[in-house]
Amino acid sequence: MADINAIAKQFTDYYYQVFSADRKNLAPLYRDHSMLTFEAQQFQGTNAIIEKLASLPFTSIQHRVTTMDAQPAATDKASMIVLVTGQLITGDETNALNFSQAFHLMPENGSYYVFNDLFRLNYG
Amino acid sequence: MADINAIAKQFTDYYYQVFSADRKNLAPLYRDHSMLTFEAQQFQGTNAIIEKLASLPFTSIQHRVTTMDAQPAATDKASMIVLVTGQLITGDETNALNFSQAFHLMPENGSYYVFNDLFRLNYG
Repeated sequence: MADINAIAKQFTDYYYQVFSADRKNLAPLYRDHSMLTFEAQQFQGTNAIIEKLASLPFTSIQHRVTTMDAQPAATDKASMIVLVTGQLITGDETNALNFSQAFHLMPENGSYYVFNDLFRLNYG
Repeated sequence: MADINAIAKQFTDYYYQVFSADRKNLAPLYRDHSMLTFEAQQFQGTNAIIEKLASLPFTSIQHRVTTMDAQPAATDKASMIVLVTGQLITGDETNALNFSQAFHLMPENGSYYVFNDLFRLNYG
């Protein structure tokens, strides 16, 4: 599963980089049937998802990835499940929060989009 | 998505209860194409997965679920992605470890089996 881990890393690196730079630019990574569950709140569709991400009350935000695991999610296509754990840094380092995020990525035209996105902060 | 959350809760309640009672009895929940990534180690197939779970060096183990989120994972079948975060209690309470686990569940004959299982402990 070397290839799938490389693809997953490439995707998440890009995703979190765009997230830090300008969350609105994540729109091309979602589709109208995409789903986001963010701290138990549910959103469906590119517009609703981007609106939620853009509304998060952080001016500076960085995902520091601690672990990332990927698996093929189907036998008949190149979809994959990615589980990320890490720290969310908002503002200065003292505000680091643990997070877990699961992505279900779907292949399309040689690239991938996000079908499922489940995000949780682990306070503690 | 009320139904899907109820199904996901029923599944994970059962899964963790069997896990605590006798991990070998989880075998019917996996298939030969099922995958487990446990702390970065990869296993495929019921036998390899159950062998790994049975070999964990804990005589007493309990999953205390803190959050559980579920989403439909396809438009053409009742598969779902479940993201669980919680604490793993091994032995006494002082050994609680945070964990994150993502399941990709597939429908089969009115029930579900685990297609993908990604498990991570968050030390710290």
